[in-house]
Amino acid sequence: MAKRDLRRLLRLSPGETVDLAAHDPAATPDAPGDKHASLADAERMGEELAELQERLWAAGTAGDRRRVLLVLQGMDTSGKGGTVKHVIGHLNPSGCRIRAFKAPTAEELRHDFLWRVRQALPQPGEIGIFDRSHYEDVLVARVRRLVPAAAIGSRYGLINDFERALTEEGVTVVKCFLHLSYEEQRRRLLRRLDRPDKRWKFAPSDIDERALWPAYQQAYELALEHCAAPPWYVIPADHKWYRNWAVGRLLLEHLRELDPEYPQSPFDLAECRERLLKET
Amino acid sequence: MAKRDLRRLLRLSPGETVDLAAHDPAATPDAPGDKHASLADAERMGEELAELQERLWAAGTAGDRRRVLLVLQGMDTSGKGGTVKHVIGHLNPSGCRIRAFKAPTAEELRHDFLWRVRQALPQPGEIGIFDRSHYEDVLVARVRRLVPAAAIGSRYGLINDFERALTEEGVTVVKCFLHLSYEEQRRRLLRRLDRPDKRWKFAPSDIDERALWPAYQQAYELALEHCAAPPWYVIPADHKWYRNWAVGRLLLEHLRELDPEYPQSPFDLAECRERLLKET
Repeated sequence: MAKRDLRRLLRLSPGETVDLAAHDPAATPDAPGDKHASLADAERMGEELAELQERLWAAGTAGDRRRVLLVLQGMDTSGKGGTVKHVIGHLNPSGCRIRAFKAPTAEELRHDFLWRVRQALPQPGEIGIFDRSHYEDVLVARVRRLVPAAAIGSRYGLINDFERALTEEGVTVVKCFLHLSYEEQRRRLLRRLDRPDKRWKFAPSDIDERALWPAYQQAYELALEHCAAPPWYVIPADHKWYRNWAVGRLLLEHLRELDPEYPQSPFDLAECRERLLKET
Repeated sequence: MAKRDLRRLLRLSPGETVDLAAHDPAATPDAPGDKHASLADAERMGEELAELQERLWAAGTAGDRRRVLLVLQGMDTSGKGGTVKHVIGHLNPSGCRIRAFKAPTAEELRHDFLWRVRQALPQPGEIGIFDRSHYEDVLVARVRRLVPAAAIGSRYGLINDFERALTEEGVTVVKCFLHLSYEEQRRRLLRRLDRPDKRWKFAPSDIDERALWPAYQQAYELALEHCAAPPWYVIPADHKWYRNWAVGRLLLEHLRELDPEYPQSPFDLAECRERLLKET
């Protein structure tokens, strides 16, 4: 188990100019070892994660308003879905609220861009996981010019207000950018093409999006810079085993810090045992 | 792998008078063998479940409106949460919409009883899982007289209309009643009391609820009888391994019948490969 605080290693500081090119997508900072060792460590983490989640949920039943929201963003094939599957494997899914955001529906477009996100928030005691999020509205919306530039500018402020309000309501927002390299995306897209059961995930428009790679990287840099609190974590994502380990580890560190407690049981244990045993 | 259709073995027929006492909660109909063999079979099922879910999701991206909603009901400690965890273990959680319903909030009470359920429905291509559901509104609501008897009577009809509409919209609703014995519930409640990390789940009111066991069984019989389409499955739930295997198996059989297909890829594979490879 890593000794240091992974959060300090991976997080961006508020006010920092973000230069994604300076972050190596193939790095494995603070990994407990190679792939094999990291998988084993992730497995061990699982038990503690599960216990902390149960304590969070239990505390929630007794009035503790705290909860966690894990936000996953990243380029196509960066592994948002795979990360959700890995993280949820450690947790009790009944205490999680998972939501994968796609292109907004007609109904969603009738509301402000945060509306659909508000519907999907975790309740007290829960862990929410977003596969894409309100950040799409300053990423693809910027690159594809879906709204005027001025609207993007004001959205950064709206997102900051929104996330500050969440924080005040007891939501720990853990924002992870899955940082993939251009070359690794190529390999993953080629693999999709080559596997008949994965081909449906591919569309020629993915190649068009890929041609906009620099514009997307810039849109990410701006989003990470303008919406820096709560902080973003840049997760090197070229190695799936590292990506999974790191996101699990970040979640673990946040939950440890929250340190939720089982509520006291304000009842007479012996009496309850007796009542249960004596009923026919 | 079981050869027969488990659905035919476990489902109630529309029009059938439901007598839960005639169903053995410790039975293991059509299990592939003992606990060990059933766990192994559930493991094998996992791969096929994952593939069928991916096909369902993939078809959804191409306009197929179909989806599945697994509804789990049962007495306290019958293992609704445990079943969710087991089932989701086989699936890609990003394609699932899981919702655990608790006592309605103040906001939920301001709406009709189906309102919160509508918010949580799976979208095309998704698998929804409800840990408790709209049935609570004819179960605890009946036993605890939370609404007048006449309102319960009309709710059966509203539920039937609602589920018929869902079916017409392409939602396969799989309703599972986790059938637990009174004795097994006693054992599970005692275990909660005895384990410090499980004690928070216990409240003396659980014993009061338990005193209403016959009233709950009757409320279930009425609900299962009055809301018989789509059909209910009565899952013997005293053995956790059987319960998990059976629910997984039912989901598998429904997905097999839906037989969703990967969308055709209407693009030139070789050209896309070439485009991907030649970009710098």
